[in-house]
Amino acid sequence: MSHAPASAPPDSGAPRRGRPGYDRETLLAVCVEVFNVHGYDATSMGTLSKHLGISKSAIYHHVESKEEILEQALNRALDALEEVLAAAERTEAPAVQRLEQVIRGTVHVLVEQMPYVTLLLRLRGNSEVETRALERRRTVTRRVGALIEQAQAEGDLRRDLSGRSASRLLLGMINSIVDWYRPDPDKPDDGLADTVVALAFSGLRAP
Amino acid sequence: MSHAPASAPPDSGAPRRGRPGYDRETLLAVCVEVFNVHGYDATSMGTLSKHLGISKSAIYHHVESKEEILEQALNRALDALEEVLAAAERTEAPAVQRLEQVIRGTVHVLVEQMPYVTLLLRLRGNSEVETRALERRRTVTRRVGALIEQAQAEGDLRRDLSGRSASRLLLGMINSIVDWYRPDPDKPDDGLADTVVALAFSGLRAP
Repeated sequence: MSHAPASAPPDSGAPRRGRPGYDRETLLAVCVEVFNVHGYDATSMGTLSKHLGISKSAIYHHVESKEEILEQALNRALDALEEVLAAAERTEAPAVQRLEQVIRGTVHVLVEQMPYVTLLLRLRGNSEVETRALERRRTVTRRVGALIEQAQAEGDLRRDLSGRSASRLLLGMINSIVDWYRPDPDKPDDGLADTVVALAFSGLRAP
Repeated sequence: MSHAPASAPPDSGAPRRGRPGYDRETLLAVCVEVFNVHGYDATSMGTLSKHLGISKSAIYHHVESKEEILEQALNRALDALEEVLAAAERTEAPAVQRLEQVIRGTVHVLVEQMPYVTLLLRLRGNSEVETRALERRRTVTRRVGALIEQAQAEGDLRRDLSGRSASRLLLGMINSIVDWYRPDPDKPDDGLADTVVALAFSGLRAP
């Protein structure tokens, strides 16, 4: 019923579970790429079947619906972003240091999980899965805003900007990375997080 | 053939040309809203006809194709953004001042022409109209990058950041405005441009 398609990656090193053909991880990755190119709404299970090179019933062996694939993909992005915030909130450091930790961690998540975060950031839909994901995303934004306000209260950040606008603009700057940044495989750490931190805290002006 | 639809705005004050029903300006505005909600590719002339409350042939009285509507909408956004750059480039001021002028001007275009710029920023397609618009958008980014590099050379901006990354991040911050900012009709100037300029040049850190 399911066959390893000609276009499958040669050997990603990921463990293959269940039937031969796609493991769940690779299936998810391919589906997310298709969603990002064609848009989630415009992608049917038939489109996914064509791109995966396996039958629809082989896909249904892994997942119950297209929406389940979306949910798993969005969870991957949101779990990673929330873990960045949770890790920072667990420390006792001043808020400004925790904010820097969040900025660096978020940049890394965006680069590491780029297709999943791209899917999240382009979400516009109204299904229950999408509404839930957008609400989790809003909560992340609010937690960054709260961290900025705490760092303002501690005297480390300027107080003439609203925490809400500042967090929206800061996250807007960070989120734009998925639109233009393509990591160089030979230089996985090219200082992107340093650049974002420098801009966010000190701006463009020469000291 | 064309009738003033029940849902048309009462009186926008815009001059009405040609047949009764929509003037070109209002038709464009309604179509852009529909594109932004449903996505350009997913919007058919039938969808536009339903939202406008006029027949397809009444739409064809104004435009030749859906793509012509897209092109007019994208031109509106791009013309405004390019004019901001051209105005700054016409002055003799130091590059850092011209950059500030570009940042303020771009924020204003985004707020004033929000639906048109939103359409431009969400563009992912491959039609000739879209490719041309994306190329114009890339040229705008490059001109901002060149302005940053000139201000770095003039010693007003720090030189430890690449002009390319800095311009992408700066424009990413500015462009995010269409995703979260909703102007307060009672306070049309609530200092958004000041906030963006402050963050861009000086960052979040307390002086």
